[in-house]
Amino acid sequence: MHDTDEQAGMGLTEGLSVFAANCAEVPAKAMETARTGIINAIGLMIAARTDPAVIAANQTIGHMDTSSSGGSSVLLSSSHLARSTDAAFVNGTAVHAFAMDDVIWGCHPSAVLLPAILAEAERIKASGADVMRAWVVGYEVLGELVSRERDSLHSTGWHPTGLLGAIAAAAALCNLLKIPAETARRAIGIAASFTGGASVNFGTQTKALHAGRAASAGVLAVQLAEAGITATPRALEADNGFLKMISPHGNVDIASGFDPGNRPWRILEDGICIKQYPLCYSIHRLVDAAASLSESGGLRLSDIQEIDVWLGGKQAALAHHESPQDALQAKYSVEFAVASGLVSQTAGFAQLTPDHIQSEAMQSLMKATRRHLMDEQSEEDPLFAPYDKIRLSMADGAIVESAEVHYPRGHAKNPLTEDMQRRQFMESVAGGIADPDGLYDALWDLEDMPDISRLPQLCNPA
Amino acid sequence: MHDTDEQAGMGLTEGLSVFAANCAEVPAKAMETARTGIINAIGLMIAARTDPAVIAANQTIGHMDTSSSGGSSVLLSSSHLARSTDAAFVNGTAVHAFAMDDVIWGCHPSAVLLPAILAEAERIKASGADVMRAWVVGYEVLGELVSRERDSLHSTGWHPTGLLGAIAAAAALCNLLKIPAETARRAIGIAASFTGGASVNFGTQTKALHAGRAASAGVLAVQLAEAGITATPRALEADNGFLKMISPHGNVDIASGFDPGNRPWRILEDGICIKQYPLCYSIHRLVDAAASLSESGGLRLSDIQEIDVWLGGKQAALAHHESPQDALQAKYSVEFAVASGLVSQTAGFAQLTPDHIQSEAMQSLMKATRRHLMDEQSEEDPLFAPYDKIRLSMADGAIVESAEVHYPRGHAKNPLTEDMQRRQFMESVAGGIADPDGLYDALWDLEDMPDISRLPQLCNPA
Repeated sequence: MHDTDEQAGMGLTEGLSVFAANCAEVPAKAMETARTGIINAIGLMIAARTDPAVIAANQTIGHMDTSSSGGSSVLLSSSHLARSTDAAFVNGTAVHAFAMDDVIWGCHPSAVLLPAILAEAERIKASGADVMRAWVVGYEVLGELVSRERDSLHSTGWHPTGLLGAIAAAAALCNLLKIPAETARRAIGIAASFTGGASVNFGTQTKALHAGRAASAGVLAVQLAEAGITATPRALEADNGFLKMISPHGNVDIASGFDPGNRPWRILEDGICIKQYPLCYSIHRLVDAAASLSESGGLRLSDIQEIDVWLGGKQAALAHHESPQDALQAKYSVEFAVASGLVSQTAGFAQLTPDHIQSEAMQSLMKATRRHLMDEQSEEDPLFAPYDKIRLSMADGAIVESAEVHYPRGHAKNPLTEDMQRRQFMESVAGGIADPDGLYDALWDLEDMPDISRLPQLCNPA
Repeated sequence: MHDTDEQAGMGLTEGLSVFAANCAEVPAKAMETARTGIINAIGLMIAARTDPAVIAANQTIGHMDTSSSGGSSVLLSSSHLARSTDAAFVNGTAVHAFAMDDVIWGCHPSAVLLPAILAEAERIKASGADVMRAWVVGYEVLGELVSRERDSLHSTGWHPTGLLGAIAAAAALCNLLKIPAETARRAIGIAASFTGGASVNFGTQTKALHAGRAASAGVLAVQLAEAGITATPRALEADNGFLKMISPHGNVDIASGFDPGNRPWRILEDGICIKQYPLCYSIHRLVDAAASLSESGGLRLSDIQEIDVWLGGKQAALAHHESPQDALQAKYSVEFAVASGLVSQTAGFAQLTPDHIQSEAMQSLMKATRRHLMDEQSEEDPLFAPYDKIRLSMADGAIVESAEVHYPRGHAKNPLTEDMQRRQFMESVAGGIADPDGLYDALWDLEDMPDISRLPQLCNPA
């Protein structure tokens, strides 16, 4: 038992990572429980071979022949070979297909843990004891996560098996593969983003995966639907449906219908915003405000004593790195955005270098910056304040203040010219492809391209 | 514009499905906006070829050679071929890797929509106009979803690009592939479950995918972590981290640490529960209560006039089908659980048939059932009431009442015998494998199995 007089121990994520990575022995009684769960789950996996959901899931993955190299696992639910992620997907669906798999805390541990473990266990020729120990580790992690929440996740529509199970499965696998705690910690962080995305991972490479995973999910959803998988017809707007489930405070419109034939086009009202800086969008207006002051001429950076910055509280929360040391942190830093706008009149890839970030000029400007958070929300986007602005206090007592910036450069209401768009594209692909002009012109005439399979050829490397 | 005097239109999910499936033409100005987004995104996809996140994502997928058949797409971000879900994953990660991709409503449309569309567009040799129209459809769906929520999803930690993007990408693809609205509706429902799971999909095949997808996510998370992808070290417990993001009311313990070396084993305290019925676990106690009354003898089913059922409100919400007509609905039906327990003393696969469900005896018992919902929660699991019970009112005025059932059969505190477990396994695998006894015995001795890669052979089909 925990001694409540002791320290609370490691942070949760780190503690779970160390546990997953290092747990080498578990109680004998725990191994017995693991065996019970595993026997039951394997029976169900085999029983579900003819289940329509399993057949459909199988249709969406690529089977491998036995000569394929690396990472292939046997689908116990179909006797084929597949890539390990695919084997986990199909076998997990199989264990859960009859809803007869073991259950605890409103979760189904074996349906998630066992397929994940087996997907890699064959490859490394793990022992039965290794598999059971990894199962126990995943079980403990799942239980720890469930115990943290005092309400029922089910009450707002979550199915915690899938939600928390991904993290528990990652932990189990880290134990099986004996990977270091630091890697396990990242695996848990990545799995936590497999809900679709957790903004806590902004400033790490995991953020980019959010888009990739969503794109892939969309493709997979359509493939599964075409393969016949059933889903409820009011998935989004039901009382316990998706929109209520994810809503921060339930302030979500589930009552309105949607008329597919008689509706205004959002794209005509809202357009599109092309980013000018590879920073979090919440701080683009600050780069522009700072750049406008710097571009206006006559500003001596060394005379700046204080920088007051007004922006929305939610914007600032996303760009939480106050003292960034590397590019990923700088991308999510109010202070970097302002300082870079002042020093370089922009905040591009050339500014996202350790040398620039750690330069004395940048560091001293970042230290001189004070945030003033506004609660007021833009009518167009509740994430933003109505505007951002900057005020500089100079050594001679002068005050230099930017305009209130409502729309950053490249915003639909402050758009790029055609020339600027072309230049930005050319900078993106520079050195990457053989014929950038040919590609740009083809994309400009995209509406008239008869066959999109021409496109990859136009992207051939230089 | 909507005419507010008119009807609210189709339900949201259906309306979006019909729109996605049938939208054949979009305004010219919308096509121009699509072109702007697509040009920018393709530039970024190419630019990101050398980005570490893209390289790591590439490592986790299997590349195909050009002779591979079916479903392969060019990875514009690497010039390889890959399965379409994988191409969408890598290309989406690439568009978003520099965080320079277009943005609106706190979302990044092109990073999700374009990779999903391209992943299938090559295969069907779609035209440029088809691609652009599909992009516009995805954009509209994304905007509709964002507009429904009055708070900022970012405020509790969500990254809406990944969360809502999966649904928008599915809709875009449905448009590209010209699939019927009914299939599109299922695709949207499946995509809505790719957060990890939405319980609104209980009673459909999508529920089983929750486990499969989570198992696969765990495997992928570990592969990505091993390939070097960075993630924040306090992903779970940060103030804007995963646990707060998913918490229904924020009643979640993010403060406690986790001591990996000095902690009680949850598995020893809570054990494992093996399900006896292929029904939602929230109604297992009711089957047992009804079966116990039926098994006690002397009960004439035709004399039952009213059935009063006490159970937890959250349990009942999960098992919401009051008048089930098929097996998937019956699995989530309070009324079915009670009636089947009374009629058959169990609720197994033999009872989950249309004939049984629609039989006169079952239907009349289900109609006679009244739910009484308890708010009181079990201390062990807030999803459950402390107990369930049933009271029958007979034609002769007699009242027959079950005991209060605290733990269903197979629960860790009401466990199966070894014999029962073996019998249940044999029923699962019956006819499915060549040597069920050999497999069972090997699993029973799993702890001593030196090499788990023996297992698939033991599962060879009969």
